[in-house]
Amino acid sequence: NSSFDQKKHPHRRYNPLLDEWILVSPQRANRPWQGQTEKRAEERLPAHDENCYLCSGNTRVNGDKNPDYKGVFVFENDFGSLMKDEVEFAEETSGFFSLQPERGINRVICFSENHSLTLPEMEVDDIKKVVDVWQNQYRELGNLDYINHVQIFENKGQIMGCSNPHPHGQIWAQSSIPSIVLKTQDNLKRYFDKSGNSLLEDYVKKELEADERIILENEDFIAIVPFWAVWPYETMIVSKRKIENVLDFYDREKLSLASILKDLTTKYDNLFEMSFPYSAGIHQSPTDGNSHTEWHFHMHFYPPLLRSAEVKKFMVGYEMLAEPQRDITPEQSAEILKNLSNIHYKKQIK
Amino acid sequence: NSSFDQKKHPHRRYNPLLDEWILVSPQRANRPWQGQTEKRAEERLPAHDENCYLCSGNTRVNGDKNPDYKGVFVFENDFGSLMKDEVEFAEETSGFFSLQPERGINRVICFSENHSLTLPEMEVDDIKKVVDVWQNQYRELGNLDYINHVQIFENKGQIMGCSNPHPHGQIWAQSSIPSIVLKTQDNLKRYFDKSGNSLLEDYVKKELEADERIILENEDFIAIVPFWAVWPYETMIVSKRKIENVLDFYDREKLSLASILKDLTTKYDNLFEMSFPYSAGIHQSPTDGNSHTEWHFHMHFYPPLLRSAEVKKFMVGYEMLAEPQRDITPEQSAEILKNLSNIHYKKQIK
Ligand SMILES: O=P(O)(O)O[C@H]1O[C@H](CO)[C@@H](O)[C@H](O)[C@H]1O
Ligand SMILES: O=P(O)(O)O[C@H]1O[C@H](CO)[C@@H](O)[C@H](O)[C@H]1O
Repeated sequence: NSSFDQKKHPHRRYNPLLDEWILVSPQRANRPWQGQTEKRAEERLPAHDENCYLCSGNTRVNGDKNPDYKGVFVFENDFGSLMKDEVEFAEETSGFFSLQPERGINRVICFSENHSLTLPEMEVDDIKKVVDVWQNQYRELGNLDYINHVQIFENKGQIMGCSNPHPHGQIWAQSSIPSIVLKTQDNLKRYFDKSGNSLLEDYVKKELEADERIILENEDFIAIVPFWAVWPYETMIVSKRKIENVLDFYDREKLSLASILKDLTTKYDNLFEMSFPYSAGIHQSPTDGNSHTEWHFHMHFYPPLLRSAEVKKFMVGYEMLAEPQRDITPEQSAEILKNLSNIHYKKQIK
Repeated sequence: NSSFDQKKHPHRRYNPLLDEWILVSPQRANRPWQGQTEKRAEERLPAHDENCYLCSGNTRVNGDKNPDYKGVFVFENDFGSLMKDEVEFAEETSGFFSLQPERGINRVICFSENHSLTLPEMEVDDIKKVVDVWQNQYRELGNLDYINHVQIFENKGQIMGCSNPHPHGQIWAQSSIPSIVLKTQDNLKRYFDKSGNSLLEDYVKKELEADERIILENEDFIAIVPFWAVWPYETMIVSKRKIENVLDFYDREKLSLASILKDLTTKYDNLFEMSFPYSAGIHQSPTDGNSHTEWHFHMHFYPPLLRSAEVKKFMVGYEMLAEPQRDITPEQSAEILKNLSNIHYKKQIK
């Protein structure tokens, strides 16, 4: 019997945010890949594209014309998943056919008028303006009486279902607290009720001590590969202070967040020297009017790539039916990301 | 205020197997798609491919030679995610860094020596031989003292991370009960303890009454789009009788399962007249030696395609961070699948 080595032996790790285990198979990282490969994104885009429905002054599919905006621009999604109107719901449903109408609002946030940019290529001050808009949107939407949760997120790259390279994110604001957020909240609350502390505040302290998975740190935030990360280069940005939601940010914290966002996404782009695809989004307290002392602001990054710009991790069969599984360990991923330059590869002098 | 119509208005539906809600947005089905498209799989494959590591008599990557098998052939995965060896595990882990070694076995099941076939193109008697092997494997692996769960599944198609079109599935057998199976079990058990009935037996009865989501029915099984399906054409095969696991099958039930498997996968292939990709797998009682009267055999099919062979549903941003979301309703999908022919498009005389 050999003795256990987490760099060599299959093992499971516990995710306290979701109260779930994941499977780690470090020995499998070197298997040959003969399966599907992905297309690289185009490298050079114009600053303004006549055919882009997000560019300044262009006309969208529904005939609306975008203003000649500079900086951040927010509008309502022309093909939203939610509808604002209240509907009459007579039938009570229960048992196996339980169903309830859902009201909400879908918005698109263009990060910049410049079609060719992405977060890592924007200036920190301009990213801060995106953070300002997240704050304003969360406030405005959250204040509506029928909006109890505001999900802010970004899908980046064709491989993440994003149909337009123009830098943009989305907001889906709705009446209910979505399943995954609710599960996270339950676990944060259980911990808070038991210990009187924020789960993520305690976690950040332990991670700073361990110093094995930290990629970036500034005065107010850390960026880490969580101990229980599922995706090969999954990361999380967490505030050091217990901040329930974006409304609690001091001005300095907004700048710190913009700065760590730039550095993290720059490292991502440098990993395979390409515009790195991901889905990212903020988890924070719901806007349901209840007290949420258990909540602690964090932002997840779920990038699909595994070995190169062409080879992604497939979360299929076993992962869909049984349990998420990863090959490379979180510590190895963190090490790789940490050692990458903070200067974007397009700007490096070689 | 208009009154609620589930074919028109956004709503949420409850999934009793996972105790989670999903978002349904029927009004969104017609949005234009300008994003990534998928490649169609090759239509004509040879019955034997010299370069295929699963074909009879060929040599695999690790140097092992496959026997000249006919029918079903099982071997151990050369790049498994699990390892059989027991490892010594001294350190106790807890708190934020909880981890445990995991033992297990990964096997590959070739469904046929014929490289060009897939389940819908196989004869029912030959599919029954696959079911026999599922039974034998579940028994053999489940009897090992360190194996407490046997996950049987199939990834079909390049888009599902499957690197070889040779008809095959997999088994991952391991010490722990995986997260999603455990969650399902908890919900089956809660229902069983409360009502004394199998959740899925009661559900099947209600679905037969409603007759809105049933695609196929024979003496022993139904194939339905569950009320809470997430993927556009997600389906579930459920036994009418409460069967805890494959060992409980009567011989007739094995033939009935083979037959409904052939018919369902034939309809899938007929949907877009292509070899239809999916991940499928069996949920059944674990092999942990405990009594599992709550369990009820079922098989999930998670196919990624949405509108055509080229356009898939992206489960990204909102879905990864907040909640699964679908456009077309389960009733619409069931209607479409139900009305498709049971004769494979390649065999239809046109
Ligand atoms: O074992 P395979 O077919 O090489 O690999 C495929 O299925 C596995 C089980 O669902 C996944 O973990 C892999 O990501 C996927 O590529
Ligand atoms: O709204 P988009 O960008 O057109 O669409 C994309 O993001 C949505 C939210 O994650 C998903 O529901 C869609 O499947 C995806 O294609």
